[in-house]
Amino acid sequence: MQEIHNTFMKRALSLASKGKGFVNPNPMVGAVLVKDGEVIGEGYHTAFGKPHAEIEAIRNTRKSVDGATIYVTLEPCSHYGKTPPCAEALIKAGVKEVVIASLDPNPLVAGRGVKMLEDAGIKVIVGIEEEASKELNRIFFKYIQTKTPYVLMKTAMTLDGKIATHTGDSKWVSGEISRKKVHQLRHQLMGIMVGINTVLKDSPKLDCRLEGKVRQPIKIIVDSLLRTPLDAKIWEHEAKVIIATTKLPSIEIIQKYTDKGAEVFVAGENRVDLAHLMKELGERGVDSILLEGGATLNASALQAGIVNEVWTFVAPKIVGGTVAPTSVGGEGVTLMKDAYQLTGFQVEPSGEDWLFKAKVNK
Amino acid sequence: MQEIHNTFMKRALSLASKGKGFVNPNPMVGAVLVKDGEVIGEGYHTAFGKPHAEIEAIRNTRKSVDGATIYVTLEPCSHYGKTPPCAEALIKAGVKEVVIASLDPNPLVAGRGVKMLEDAGIKVIVGIEEEASKELNRIFFKYIQTKTPYVLMKTAMTLDGKIATHTGDSKWVSGEISRKKVHQLRHQLMGIMVGINTVLKDSPKLDCRLEGKVRQPIKIIVDSLLRTPLDAKIWEHEAKVIIATTKLPSIEIIQKYTDKGAEVFVAGENRVDLAHLMKELGERGVDSILLEGGATLNASALQAGIVNEVWTFVAPKIVGGTVAPTSVGGEGVTLMKDAYQLTGFQVEPSGEDWLFKAKVNK
Repeated sequence: MQEIHNTFMKRALSLASKGKGFVNPNPMVGAVLVKDGEVIGEGYHTAFGKPHAEIEAIRNTRKSVDGATIYVTLEPCSHYGKTPPCAEALIKAGVKEVVIASLDPNPLVAGRGVKMLEDAGIKVIVGIEEEASKELNRIFFKYIQTKTPYVLMKTAMTLDGKIATHTGDSKWVSGEISRKKVHQLRHQLMGIMVGINTVLKDSPKLDCRLEGKVRQPIKIIVDSLLRTPLDAKIWEHEAKVIIATTKLPSIEIIQKYTDKGAEVFVAGENRVDLAHLMKELGERGVDSILLEGGATLNASALQAGIVNEVWTFVAPKIVGGTVAPTSVGGEGVTLMKDAYQLTGFQVEPSGEDWLFKAKVNK
Repeated sequence: MQEIHNTFMKRALSLASKGKGFVNPNPMVGAVLVKDGEVIGEGYHTAFGKPHAEIEAIRNTRKSVDGATIYVTLEPCSHYGKTPPCAEALIKAGVKEVVIASLDPNPLVAGRGVKMLEDAGIKVIVGIEEEASKELNRIFFKYIQTKTPYVLMKTAMTLDGKIATHTGDSKWVSGEISRKKVHQLRHQLMGIMVGINTVLKDSPKLDCRLEGKVRQPIKIIVDSLLRTPLDAKIWEHEAKVIIATTKLPSIEIIQKYTDKGAEVFVAGENRVDLAHLMKELGERGVDSILLEGGATLNASALQAGIVNEVWTFVAPKIVGGTVAPTSVGGEGVTLMKDAYQLTGFQVEPSGEDWLFKAKVNK
């Protein structure tokens, strides 16, 4: 029985993942309706503001849901939000069993959906493929529990650890397939964050250049002295720009950027307090950030404890250079034993490169 | 038929690899005797000076070899060396067919063994699992063809590309399993090469600390000014020490090291000419070198074009540090497009770490 549960839940998780990049700051949720061992309906949360997965699944079946089992990757909601509570809809539809991967991460509502269902006499099973569900929605879980964004630090380096040559040339470290993956990340995460050095050196667009329907990330520039050029490429399209600065720039200078349409956050006396910035961004609904920093910003982010995950592309080349930059600069730790430890250290092929993924231990 | 050939040849290759570390500068060779579709004998070259694989296979069967097929990973030899020619032994034994993975890489003798066999009316097939055979004996192939050692550059780094912290602390970057693999390399390759900086900083023993029967590598120190301490740990056991230096140190200083039992090579005016050193070492029978250099020696070795292969362990940790050392220092290339290109870029698990293996494109 357990095995059948896992099979259907995996299908529900696979459906859920189709919402990636479109549902933030909502979670990705998938649902599969099963009756007499057969799938009679499927659905997932397709976009923020659109119906929840359970409702989609019920809509997408031509058969009677009465007496069916529904597999849903997250506890059905019990409150009236943009949509009526899903738990109520399931009760009305007459399902006899609800299998849930994980409870709602919000401690204020966790278990309420289950209770509502059980009070109506529905059998509820919780915890099938729970780890996979939490992993899929790690952004949502962190954001709901801390109200600060999930930060993914992305770097690309040569096999000798360089992100550029000693002259700063970095076009390109990784191959085409890897660079496309970065654009997928830009679609999936709500914000993209770089430091002023990157803006001054490369003047990147920081947009998502995938074909088809994509969401453009909010551009977040860490710029203590407000040196971002007013003709930089980041202004070239309409995605929102947030500049995090300090108390050093004058109100007149700040005005120039707000006139340009940017939001300017003052976070810190003479250097940007990244932990404080994360709180500000979280309050404004930013649930996730792709950190594409250079050595300095990445070091500051790690030191501030805001990094949750690291993706590192490794390219089949060596450039050498004692002063060529690496992905994490700053002062660094003194002893190897005091290094930031990573967990879930996995690698996968990425065209001619390899891609490491890992979580940062807190 | 082809498929059966591959199956038996793979077995022969697997046998051949058992000689790893014991046969240098000979090749690893394996042989499988097959009669009526059944293996009737197996053998491999177990150690330098011991019988060749074909002879071992014939010795290790209790059945008649008459009319059998032999699978051998390298062309049987045709000359009288430490042992009589294997081709002759196969003719005498009455084999009817010889299947060979690859011809002898020495252009002076390649094809002679085949001719001797064919002249005796034996059917010969060449090229079964040829690539695998060349890969297994890549040290032998390079050494025979160039008379210079095959150089494998081994490095270990954090996910942010550091081989030590900014203070130079490097204990330990990689985990126990990875460090054990390095000792296997020290057993397999004839020499181990480091720079004077490593000797002065870490005073490594440079020995092979595996249990069981191992071969200790020759220790090769690149030391332009002869600063290797006479009480360094490299002197602690009897393996041979070669110090490569320049014309700068006086004969009196050189004498101190030769008195200590070291061979001192003068290779270069004021810095060690690595390409020249490789020729000298090759002439003395050193077919392979494990380069465990620091940033400077690794950079010089790449620049001198002596590196054939790179192994890089990547550990699940980040240390940061703008001045923390990376695996390849020096000036480095100016443009990313001019990077040293690597081929056959593969990765495999190594305990908690991952191990990259790649060949350096020439």
